[in-house]
Amino acid sequence: MMRSLLLLLVSLMACQQAVAEVQTKTVEYQDGDVTLSGYVAWDPEVTGHPVPGVLVVHQWMGLTKYEKGRCQQLAELGYVAFALDIYGQDVRPDTVQEAGQTATIYKEDRDLYRRRLNLGLEQLRQQSGVDKENLVAIGYCFGGTGVIELARSGAEINGVVSFHGGLDSPSPADGKNITAKMLICHGADDPFVPEADVKACLDELDAADVDWQMNVYSGAVHSFTQPMAGDDNSRGAAYNAEADRRSWAAMRVFFAELFDQDVLKQNAE
Amino acid sequence: MMRSLLLLLVSLMACQQAVAEVQTKTVEYQDGDVTLSGYVAWDPEVTGHPVPGVLVVHQWMGLTKYEKGRCQQLAELGYVAFALDIYGQDVRPDTVQEAGQTATIYKEDRDLYRRRLNLGLEQLRQQSGVDKENLVAIGYCFGGTGVIELARSGAEINGVVSFHGGLDSPSPADGKNITAKMLICHGADDPFVPEADVKACLDELDAADVDWQMNVYSGAVHSFTQPMAGDDNSRGAAYNAEADRRSWAAMRVFFAELFDQDVLKQNAE
Repeated sequence: MMRSLLLLLVSLMACQQAVAEVQTKTVEYQDGDVTLSGYVAWDPEVTGHPVPGVLVVHQWMGLTKYEKGRCQQLAELGYVAFALDIYGQDVRPDTVQEAGQTATIYKEDRDLYRRRLNLGLEQLRQQSGVDKENLVAIGYCFGGTGVIELARSGAEINGVVSFHGGLDSPSPADGKNITAKMLICHGADDPFVPEADVKACLDELDAADVDWQMNVYSGAVHSFTQPMAGDDNSRGAAYNAEADRRSWAAMRVFFAELFDQDVLKQNAE
Repeated sequence: MMRSLLLLLVSLMACQQAVAEVQTKTVEYQDGDVTLSGYVAWDPEVTGHPVPGVLVVHQWMGLTKYEKGRCQQLAELGYVAFALDIYGQDVRPDTVQEAGQTATIYKEDRDLYRRRLNLGLEQLRQQSGVDKENLVAIGYCFGGTGVIELARSGAEINGVVSFHGGLDSPSPADGKNITAKMLICHGADDPFVPEADVKACLDELDAADVDWQMNVYSGAVHSFTQPMAGDDNSRGAAYNAEADRRSWAAMRVFFAELFDQDVLKQNAE
């Protein structure tokens, strides 16, 4: 108990020191001739030991300031966070139509999508200070699909967190490749993630004996973590501050479990 | 940020001091001629300000050492916890058959059940050191049904947490009385809580615009928080240490939200 508290205090003090001290940089990398442009955030005051790495997979607009902000939040919590680039450095959709078309390329070519996801994971592994044995991937919308696809590819990661991700799977047999634990954060009223897809995904995970959790938030539609989605639920995508806060807290508790931090761990006595 | 951390540190220090110092006592109270025998746990070192009160509603075997242990855990976290008695002091089933018959009395007479639940809540309110404006109810199995029934009765509580509770409702229109926020912790493979009941319950809550969350745990059947349920999932009820730990952590984060503790609160930036 004392040890748990000390660990927590130490991590909190590290977190406190870290505020406003986070460092970031752009990271260019290649898929053959295609240049990809990712983004890494870390806290330079967290030194002396490798820390878990978090891969952040963007939504359909590509890598934006939103994902960069999440990386900074994660760095403030003591992680090294890397936002990958699926689309390539020159591809940043300006409209939702363009975003939809671009995302569709990857949703219809899962091999390509998986390759780009794994290239991003490899970049995370190579970042300074990252504990290569303690990795997790989080993703939003299109990226919420992506982190599950990454797990289906057999990537060696401890866990994935999908925020309002599409849950369809063209190749459910690939569930057998999943070794990651999975946290699925889902809006109860999300019109873009059909009930049938939710059920099929969970059936796939069960068939493969995957350790999964799903948190469902009332009154939340698609994009519930994204302030830029506005507040009109009738459009099917909208920000929901409660669901945002709750899912982020659930992610932090999940990380604590994955990385054997003793925060909030307690069983029946 | 600094303030959040200080609050957390203070509560953790209080928690640390509390270990092994928790006090408990039996509390007798009446429903007419029927004597009910509850149990309260608190930390005498948490003084000087009222603290949130937690009502604990027992499973079908009645008030046992299991609920008492949960009260002690809650007291160690700085709450005053009261385990109520639905059945009456002389009614402690010895067998599951007897438990089933006894629970059925209350599941078939919801007015009686609600009266006993509210009498328990009243006892919690009267305990020394309880902040009467900050109350929550948690319950297991039969008691997981009970906490929702308590909310449906219009009880003034901030929240309820149902662990593997039955989710059927004989009077769904009563959802409109619910003011409490709701966290439902559910085993994905629970054969005693049919999918149709889950859906009907969530529809009831949505129709009444209730703020709810549901966490679903893979590989968990009924009684997943209860070590005495054994480990044979094929019986439909079994302990699941992961789901136990995860649901308890989710409860703590939920309490932090209800009681405006700044633990783990963070939104998109």
